[in-house]
Amino acid sequence: MRARERGIIIGEMQPGPGNAITDVEGVFVGHETIDTDRHKTGVTVVLPSKDNPYLNKLVAASFVLNGFGKTQGLIQVDELGSIETPIALTNTLNIGIVHDALVEYAIQTCREEGHRVTTVNPIVCECNDSSLNDIQERAVTREHVFRAIKNASPIVQEGDVGCGKGTTCHGLKGGVGTSSRIMNIEGESFTIGVLCQTNHGRLKDLTINGDAIGKNIYDSLYDNEPDKGSCIIIIATDLPVSSRQLRRIIKRAGVSLARLGSFWGHGSGDVLVGFSTANRMPVSSPAILSARFLKEGILDTAFRACAEAAEEALLNSMLEANAVTGFSGEHRNSLSEFI
Amino acid sequence: MRARERGIIIGEMQPGPGNAITDVEGVFVGHETIDTDRHKTGVTVVLPSKDNPYLNKLVAASFVLNGFGKTQGLIQVDELGSIETPIALTNTLNIGIVHDALVEYAIQTCREEGHRVTTVNPIVCECNDSSLNDIQERAVTREHVFRAIKNASPIVQEGDVGCGKGTTCHGLKGGVGTSSRIMNIEGESFTIGVLCQTNHGRLKDLTINGDAIGKNIYDSLYDNEPDKGSCIIIIATDLPVSSRQLRRIIKRAGVSLARLGSFWGHGSGDVLVGFSTANRMPVSSPAILSARFLKEGILDTAFRACAEAAEEALLNSMLEANAVTGFSGEHRNSLSEFI
Amino acid sequence: MRARERGIIIGEMQPGPGNAITDVEGVFVGHETIDTDRHKTGVTVVLPSKDNPYLNKLVAASFVLNGFGKTQGLIQVDELGSIETPIALTNTLNIGIVHDALVEYAIQTCREEGHRVTTVNPIVCECNDSSLNDIQERAVTREHVFRAIKNASPIVQEGDVGCGKGTTCHGLKGGVGTSSRIMNIEGESFTIGVLCQTNHGRLKDLTINGDAIGKNIYDSLYDNEPDKGSCIIIIATDLPVSSRQLRRIIKRAGVSLARLGSFWGHGSGDVLVGFSTANRMPVSSPAILSARFLKEGILDTAFRACAEAAEEALLNSMLEANAVTGFSGEHRNSLSEFI
Amino acid sequence: MRARERGIIIGEMQPGPGNAITDVEGVFVGHETIDTDRHKTGVTVVLPSKDNPYLNKLVAASFVLNGFGKTQGLIQVDELGSIETPIALTNTLNIGIVHDALVEYAIQTCREEGHRVTTVNPIVCECNDSSLNDIQERAVTREHVFRAIKNASPIVQEGDVGCGKGTTCHGLKGGVGTSSRIMNIEGESFTIGVLCQTNHGRLKDLTINGDAIGKNIYDSLYDNEPDKGSCIIIIATDLPVSSRQLRRIIKRAGVSLARLGSFWGHGSGDVLVGFSTANRMPVSSPAILSARFLKEGILDTAFRACAEAAEEALLNSMLEANAVTGFSGEHRNSLSEFI
Repeated sequence: MRARERGIIIGEMQPGPGNAITDVEGVFVGHETIDTDRHKTGVTVVLPSKDNPYLNKLVAASFVLNGFGKTQGLIQVDELGSIETPIALTNTLNIGIVHDALVEYAIQTCREEGHRVTTVNPIVCECNDSSLNDIQERAVTREHVFRAIKNASPIVQEGDVGCGKGTTCHGLKGGVGTSSRIMNIEGESFTIGVLCQTNHGRLKDLTINGDAIGKNIYDSLYDNEPDKGSCIIIIATDLPVSSRQLRRIIKRAGVSLARLGSFWGHGSGDVLVGFSTANRMPVSSPAILSARFLKEGILDTAFRACAEAAEEALLNSMLEANAVTGFSGEHRNSLSEFI
Repeated sequence: MRARERGIIIGEMQPGPGNAITDVEGVFVGHETIDTDRHKTGVTVVLPSKDNPYLNKLVAASFVLNGFGKTQGLIQVDELGSIETPIALTNTLNIGIVHDALVEYAIQTCREEGHRVTTVNPIVCECNDSSLNDIQERAVTREHVFRAIKNASPIVQEGDVGCGKGTTCHGLKGGVGTSSRIMNIEGESFTIGVLCQTNHGRLKDLTINGDAIGKNIYDSLYDNEPDKGSCIIIIATDLPVSSRQLRRIIKRAGVSLARLGSFWGHGSGDVLVGFSTANRMPVSSPAILSARFLKEGILDTAFRACAEAAEEALLNSMLEANAVTGFSGEHRNSLSEFI
Repeated sequence: MRARERGIIIGEMQPGPGNAITDVEGVFVGHETIDTDRHKTGVTVVLPSKDNPYLNKLVAASFVLNGFGKTQGLIQVDELGSIETPIALTNTLNIGIVHDALVEYAIQTCREEGHRVTTVNPIVCECNDSSLNDIQERAVTREHVFRAIKNASPIVQEGDVGCGKGTTCHGLKGGVGTSSRIMNIEGESFTIGVLCQTNHGRLKDLTINGDAIGKNIYDSLYDNEPDKGSCIIIIATDLPVSSRQLRRIIKRAGVSLARLGSFWGHGSGDVLVGFSTANRMPVSSPAILSARFLKEGILDTAFRACAEAAEEALLNSMLEANAVTGFSGEHRNSLSEFI
Repeated sequence: MRARERGIIIGEMQPGPGNAITDVEGVFVGHETIDTDRHKTGVTVVLPSKDNPYLNKLVAASFVLNGFGKTQGLIQVDELGSIETPIALTNTLNIGIVHDALVEYAIQTCREEGHRVTTVNPIVCECNDSSLNDIQERAVTREHVFRAIKNASPIVQEGDVGCGKGTTCHGLKGGVGTSSRIMNIEGESFTIGVLCQTNHGRLKDLTINGDAIGKNIYDSLYDNEPDKGSCIIIIATDLPVSSRQLRRIIKRAGVSLARLGSFWGHGSGDVLVGFSTANRMPVSSPAILSARFLKEGILDTAFRACAEAAEEALLNSMLEANAVTGFSGEHRNSLSEFI
C-alpha cells in the first residue's frame, strides 16, 4: 500500500490520475531486477518521450544537492539545457556498463531513423547498494538495460525493484517511489511527476508528516549507519519552462529530503535531474524557434508541487519495499512492518 | 521565552553556553532599531572577530538557496574564500547606504592601524520589510550602522530588533534569532553558531518540530501572503575548515527552512553566509601558510549541527518577536500568542 | 582615433553602423566625469531600453571570470535571468552610493508610471582607480548618477571619461571602450554590442592583433604593476536568447582579454554582464508568455561576435584615452603615443 | 620537434627538466594507441602518484569552460575537492567501457592492499575523433586501459598517440601535448605541468605566438569545419593549494586556448581537470589534518605558469602529430608541414 492509500497525505495539492511520474504524458518507466543470492540490484529507466529523444531533444536541468556521487552526463545538461537519451538509474559501480548500453541504444534507434550517431550524452544515475548487493561484480549487463527499456510502460512498479532492489533508506528497505501533482494555470492543466531511488538517511531521523517515527523504530530494532548512500530524484513535467526555470523547480526536491529527516549527509550523493516535455527541440529545425514560457512568479506553485510530489515519492519508495536480506546476511526491514 | 525555554528541543545535539552565534569565541552582535510611526526597520551587524578582519581575514563561504535577493559581496567571498568586514543585515532598499558605512568603517579602523584601504568588500544582506516599514525612505543611515557596531556584544537580543524590526515570517512577526551547537572532535570542543533574519514562509505551512501549528493559527486568524520576502542565515564556527568545506556546512541551513515549513519560495531571497575563526589569514604573512583541516567525513556532524542550530534560530526569531503594527496599519501577531 | 580607423581590424565579422554597444536598438550610454586635482573618477550608465526596465524586464546573464571584485546585483541576475535597472559602472568604493542612486531612480521613474517600488535590484559594477584617484573620498554622488542617466545617448564617448577617467590598463591609460558586430540569421540582422571599463593587465603582456607591442613600450618606458584592478565588460544584444544562452555568449568576452595579453590576474575583478532586448518580460503579463529562441548551434557565430567586439572595445578604451596624471603624481601614458 | 626546439618560446617562465606534466614528481603518463584501417583512437592515462590514489587521495579541482562534453566524475571532484583514481582520456563513445576499466583497476589495486572498494569515482575525459575513427564501434577495451596504465612512465609521448590518435585541432592533426613551468617561492621550487588532448578550433583562426598562420595554411589547403570537437586539459602541480585555489589556477588554461585562436566554440567540450600532489589525504587519518597553503596573492604567478604551459602543450600536440588519414578517407595534415 502506498502512502496515500494508508491515509498519509503529503501537502495540499492533488496528485495526477496515477500519482506517478508517468502522469506526464509520454513518460514511461521500466525496471530490470536482479535478485540472486549474491546480487540485489538492477536498473531502472525513465523514457522521457515516445519519440526518439536524440532526434527531438527535451529541455532539462540538474541540481546537485550533495555531490558525493557519480551521476554521469550533467556537464552537458548544465551547458545545453537538454537531454537526448533515456535516464538510467543503477548501482554505483555499474554506471560504466549502463552508459555503454545507452550509447548502443542511441546508435541503434537513430540508425533506424537514418541518423548516424557519433556523439551522445547518456544520463546515468546511481546509488550504492553494496550493503545488500555484491557490488564489485557489476551484475548489471547491457542486456539488462535493453530489457528495462523494452519493459517500460506508464505503470510504475515501486519498492525493491530495478535500481531499488538493494538500497537502504533511513535504515530500512529503500527502493523506487513515485508520485505526482497537478497544477492549473489559466485553465490549462499541467503535471509535475517524480521518481526516486532512495538510499539515504539515518533511521533515528525518519519523520513522516511530522511524526518522528524513526526514533521509535530505532529503539525497537537495532543500531544503524550514518546518513550515506545517496538519493536520486528524477522530475518530469509538461510545464513550458526554460532550463533555468526547471532548475529552480527541481531544486525544491531538497525540501522533501529534509522533511523526511535527512540533512543531506556528507556521504549521500543527492542528485536531482529534471526534464520538460514542452518546447521540444528537433535536431532538424529552423535557426529560430518559438516557445512558450511560464511567467517567473507562477513558479511558486511548481516549487510546492515538486516538493510535495518528491516527499510522497520518497515515502512510497519505503512503504512499497519488501524486507530484503543481502548477500552477506544483512537484513533491511520494511517500513510497512511498523506503520 | 526562547524555544528551548518553552520545551521545544530541536534535534539531538547540545547548544553552547549562550545558545547563540556568539558562543563562537570573538563573535559579537549589535543592533540598531528604528521604531517610529513610519519606520519599523534597522540594522544588525555580526562582527566576526575582536581584531580587524580586514588586516586578518577569515575563511568564508556563501550559498544562495534562492537568489531573489540583493545580498552584496558574495562574488569575492566565492572567489577568495574569505571575508574582511563585519556582516551587516538591513532592509532591501538600504543596502547601498549600509555598504557605504562599512566602507567608511574599514577606512577608519585600518587608518588607526596604519593601513590605507583602497579596496574592500563589505558583506551586506537584506530582507524586504516593506509591509510594515515605509521602505522607500531608506531610514537606515550610516550613523545607525556605526552605532550598531559600537553596540555589539556577546549578548544577542532576539526578535523584533535591528534588521528584524519590520520582518514577517510565516505570516506572523519575524525578526532576529540565534542558536548554537557544540561538537567534540578527538577531545577538542568546537562550536557552530547561527544568526538569522526571518522574513519568509506562509502561515499555513508553519511546522514546529513536526506539529503543523500554522494551519490552526491560520484558521483562527486571517489569510496571508505567498512565501516571499527572504531569509538571511549567518553561520559562524571555530572549526578548522576550508572555504569549500564551510560551504558544504552552511548549505544545510536549507534543511532548517524546509523543516519549519518553507519550500524556499520564488520570492524569497534565501541566502547563507558563513565564516570560520580558525585558520586566519593576515595581510602580512609569508607566502606559504600552515593550517589545520577537518577530515572530510567528520563534516557529517557539522552538517547536523548547522541544520539544528539554524532551525532553532529560526524558531527563536519568531518566539522572541513582539507583535508589530506597521506604518500602513498592517499587523503581525507574535507566534508567542499561540503557543 | 579608434582601432579600426588606425587600420587595426579585429576578427572577420562586420561592426554595426556606430561600432558601439548602442548599435543595439534602444541602448543608450551616459557618462559623468570627475576631473579635479584630487579626483580622476566618474560614473557611466548603460540604459538597456527606452522604456522603464523595471516595468518591462530584460533577459540577462552574468559570468564572473575572476571574482576579486564587488559588482552588485548578480545573485538575482543568476536566479531570475533578468535585469530591471540601468547598469552603472564606477570606482570600487563608490558602489554603495551609486547603488542608492539607482534605487532612488527606480522609485521615481516607476512612481511616474503609477507603480510603487518596494524592491529593486540595481546592477553596479566597479574598477579600482585608486592609483590616480583619491578613492577613499568617494567623489561620485547621487547627483552624478542622475546626470549620467540624463546625459545618456546613442553616441558613446570613449577613453578617459566617466567610470574610465582614472583606470589603468596594461600599465597605460585605460578607460571606456565600445564596439559591435552584426550577425545575419536567415535573412534577419542581429547585433552584439560591447562596452568595457578597462583597468587590468601588465604592460609587458600587451599584445595587439598578435603584435607583442607591450614589451617594446615597457623597455622604452618604465616598470609597472602586476595584473590587477579589474575589467568590466557589458554585452548587449537583440538576439532572441534565453538567459542560459546569453551566459554562454558573454563568457566569450574572456577570450578578448586573453588575446590582448591578460591571463585574468588574481587581483582583477573580471566581470561580464549581458542583456538582450528581445523577449521582454512585462510586470503585467499573462501567466504564460511566448518567445523566440535561437537554435543552440547558431550560438557559435554569436560567440565569435562577442569575442571580436569585446577585443576591439578593449583596444578602443586604450587608444581613445588621453594620458592622465593622478592625485599623487602618478602618470599614465596613452597607448596612442606608441602606435 | 617540439615547439621550443623550433624556437617557439611561449611566455617568459622556464619549463621543468622534461617540459612535461611528469616534471611534477610522481606523475606518470601512459598511452595505448589503436591504429587500424577502421580505428584511429586510443586511451591515455595520467597517474597522479606512485602510491594508490584511492588510499591516499589528492586535492583536485575542475573547471568546465564549455560543457558540450561528457567527462565523467566531476560532480564528486567539485564536492569533495579530491581525486582517487588515474585520469583516463579516450574517445566520446568509449567512456563507459573505460570507466568500467578504472572501476576494476581500483578494486584490484586496493584488494592487494587489503581494502575492499565499494565506491569509486573514476575520472574519464573524452574528445570526439569520429572524423578519422569509426567511433560507433568503441574500439577501446578494458585491456587497452590496463595496458596504458602498465605503460605509464615519466617520459610522455606526444602527437598522434593514445587518446590523440584520431583527433583534429584547428583543421590539422591534433593529438596529445605536454609542457611545464617552474615557480620559485621563497627559495622552494614548484612545478605546474599540463597534458592536453586537442580536438578543437578552426584552421583559419590558428595563431602561433601572434602569427596568424592559420589563414595562410587555409588558403593553400582546403576548407574546414567549425570549431567543434573538444579540448581536454589536465593540470598537475606540487603547489600546496586548496581545491578552491587549484580551480582558480586551472581556469587559466582557458587563456591558452584563446591565444591559439579558439573562442571556445559551441561544439567544443572544453574541460579542465587539475590535481596537486601536496597535502595528500590518506583514507586512514586523524580527524584533523595539517596542511600548507599558498597565500592567495602568490597565485598570480601560478596563473601565468598554467596559461603558458597549457599554450605550449597545445602547440606541442599539433607539432608532434603526424598526418593521419581516417577510416573514411579524410586526411589531416600535420602542422609541421607548414612551419
